[in-house]
Amino acid sequence: MSTATVTGMRGPLAGIRVLDTTGVVVGPVATLILAEQGADVIKIEPPEGDLMRRLGGRPRKPGMSPKFLHFNRNKRSIALDLKSAEGREVMQRLVATADVFVSNMRPRALQSLGLTFAAMAAVNPRIVHCTISGFALGGPYAGAPAYDTIIQGLSGVAACHAEVLGEPRFAPFVLTDHLVGIVAAQAICAALLGRERTGVGEAIEVPMFENAAAFVLSEHLDQRTFEPDGHMGDPRIMTPDARPLQTSDGYICVSANTDVQARAFFDAIGRPELKNDPRFTSVTARLAHVRDYFAVRAEAMLTRTTAEWVEILRRHDVPAMPYHTLQTLLDDPQLRGSGVLTEEIQKNDDDQEETMLGLRHPNRYSNTGVPESRLAPRFGEHGDAILAELGFGPEDRRRLSGRAADAAE
Amino acid sequence: MSTATVTGMRGPLAGIRVLDTTGVVVGPVATLILAEQGADVIKIEPPEGDLMRRLGGRPRKPGMSPKFLHFNRNKRSIALDLKSAEGREVMQRLVATADVFVSNMRPRALQSLGLTFAAMAAVNPRIVHCTISGFALGGPYAGAPAYDTIIQGLSGVAACHAEVLGEPRFAPFVLTDHLVGIVAAQAICAALLGRERTGVGEAIEVPMFENAAAFVLSEHLDQRTFEPDGHMGDPRIMTPDARPLQTSDGYICVSANTDVQARAFFDAIGRPELKNDPRFTSVTARLAHVRDYFAVRAEAMLTRTTAEWVEILRRHDVPAMPYHTLQTLLDDPQLRGSGVLTEEIQKNDDDQEETMLGLRHPNRYSNTGVPESRLAPRFGEHGDAILAELGFGPEDRRRLSGRAADAAE
Repeated sequence: MSTATVTGMRGPLAGIRVLDTTGVVVGPVATLILAEQGADVIKIEPPEGDLMRRLGGRPRKPGMSPKFLHFNRNKRSIALDLKSAEGREVMQRLVATADVFVSNMRPRALQSLGLTFAAMAAVNPRIVHCTISGFALGGPYAGAPAYDTIIQGLSGVAACHAEVLGEPRFAPFVLTDHLVGIVAAQAICAALLGRERTGVGEAIEVPMFENAAAFVLSEHLDQRTFEPDGHMGDPRIMTPDARPLQTSDGYICVSANTDVQARAFFDAIGRPELKNDPRFTSVTARLAHVRDYFAVRAEAMLTRTTAEWVEILRRHDVPAMPYHTLQTLLDDPQLRGSGVLTEEIQKNDDDQEETMLGLRHPNRYSNTGVPESRLAPRFGEHGDAILAELGFGPEDRRRLSGRAADAAE
Repeated sequence: MSTATVTGMRGPLAGIRVLDTTGVVVGPVATLILAEQGADVIKIEPPEGDLMRRLGGRPRKPGMSPKFLHFNRNKRSIALDLKSAEGREVMQRLVATADVFVSNMRPRALQSLGLTFAAMAAVNPRIVHCTISGFALGGPYAGAPAYDTIIQGLSGVAACHAEVLGEPRFAPFVLTDHLVGIVAAQAICAALLGRERTGVGEAIEVPMFENAAAFVLSEHLDQRTFEPDGHMGDPRIMTPDARPLQTSDGYICVSANTDVQARAFFDAIGRPELKNDPRFTSVTARLAHVRDYFAVRAEAMLTRTTAEWVEILRRHDVPAMPYHTLQTLLDDPQLRGSGVLTEEIQKNDDDQEETMLGLRHPNRYSNTGVPESRLAPRFGEHGDAILAELGFGPEDRRRLSGRAADAAE
């Protein structure tokens, strides 16, 4: 990337080209972030298309499931059969133009398709080659298939739920896919920055299991950090009493962890005598009596409405907010006001329109901004345009697009 | 960053300097990632130190709680009272040398301390100025205090648990803090890449609530994407039956979502007739009969041990892994083998030793690598060294460190 004079609000990653062969969630989450920050993300779909086109909830238009729409906006799509000679021919040219390649293929598949870092670096030594894997190479599970629920069960995510609920449960999200997708986007940008210093690209590996386990353990190693028999699990989080508190008409979330907040809370609920209760006078004391402390809070909140408590607690400088259901969240004035949730008409590049409730990148960049939001692509939508950019003439494009069009059916 | 000839395994972000005034979780998670990737993260602690030194579980040495250790390795610490003339004097010089500034202060605090982007850019136009906020500026909640549980309750995280469990619960992690910390590290790297193109830094804002809500809704808008009365919540996730399955001696996690996997699963459990059951013949059919499908799975798993099923399912190419408790996770051969969980002796820069169970950066970079891991810093540990690097002479250092030393007590 040279220091250009043109800036404009095209996003911090304008000028970066990303080749994305991933599907479903973890890879598409990674490249969604890059696309929203202005990278040209070329979604290379196999002949059957990204599975998420069909698996992501009932679509309104064929191949455009809700999750597919939410995880693939601002990307371009080309259909390529990477096993065919035509697919490889196009891929070879794409690699020469790209800054980043993202896949979740195993080493053997990368090898057989000619998509290893070594093969790509021979053509383009500046490429950053990111493999999102289930398990780090070299370990006993390397190459084993990884799905979100399997990683949740193996990495301690389900175990943390067991600590609170008494039985293993999954988080109610594709948590590890979604999380590791963000991790991968970060690692890719770090490697691109490294390239600015070293002048060359590199291969990076982002393993789901190891990232998920590090996420869980950094919070919950607790005393096991120091002692082989030490207790695991943050006691303030693992208690069943850590939850939104019931009010007379709903639920409220209250956070009063510091001494100042705890004292203000006792004043707010009209129990100032508790400020001198030895169970509650310090962080350490409240931690040792966390169930008593949470019980006091739960009991107090039952006596008034959520709105009354939010108002009273705010007056006492105790952090508190109402609890939202998924439905009430959609009407939240902060969320609507921020532009993150919008009901605009979306267009893709051939002016196909879609009126839908959609999401936007939540972060703000004062100078580079973010590019205008574009609808997730139809399968193969940008194939012809991309081939033209790569210098394929009309005849080659017919030959290559013909194959893509066949596959789309 | 100039293209230097030295590369070495110092991490993709070697040469990047980050000034970090944050504490507790969200900010320290962001700068932990940058530090592990080789950035020089200078943790600027207030006179009382990062609250997490005391709030992050019982410490073995004063001010070194488990969570503090896990979220602050590879950083340097200097104690600075940013409200004092001395603190501002040091900060001014630090800003001139830095690539990134991270805070979670509100605009008014940044203003009063002279730490706005405008003030910094006047000294150092290349600085990337990142504010991690609770709520995006301009919205009705802007400036309201934000804590993880409050954001979980407001953003739909707790509501997703209610869909499965029947009542609102928090995720058993400081999920939104931890998640948005990773998001902030990504946004910072994107802005640094933008700087390579534009030649100047910028102010970025990373709001917790908006990021958490986008995370939840991208998965669960479902039919509400299209229709005002459309159903929300991914039905395969929101069913109480989506959980690790009980075996005769523990739990197992099985993922069989594609047609090929579902058919192989019916073979593996000795019920091939279900391959032709109209409830289970396609993704759409299994989604419509998700409770029936999950009930078949749950019933079958009860009949053998976890190890037996893992072996049988593996033979049938059905993705499956055992469920780990937090305790068994620590013995996992993949996790231990990967080096992500280690029991090494850690040293900090004055050779103070700490034998502890610690974590390492999970991702791999073939060329830039990651720097050697360093123990989280003692409070103000690097103050004198940093002042010397900034060109403060012995007398100034005594004057400035004296103040820091007072504060540390």
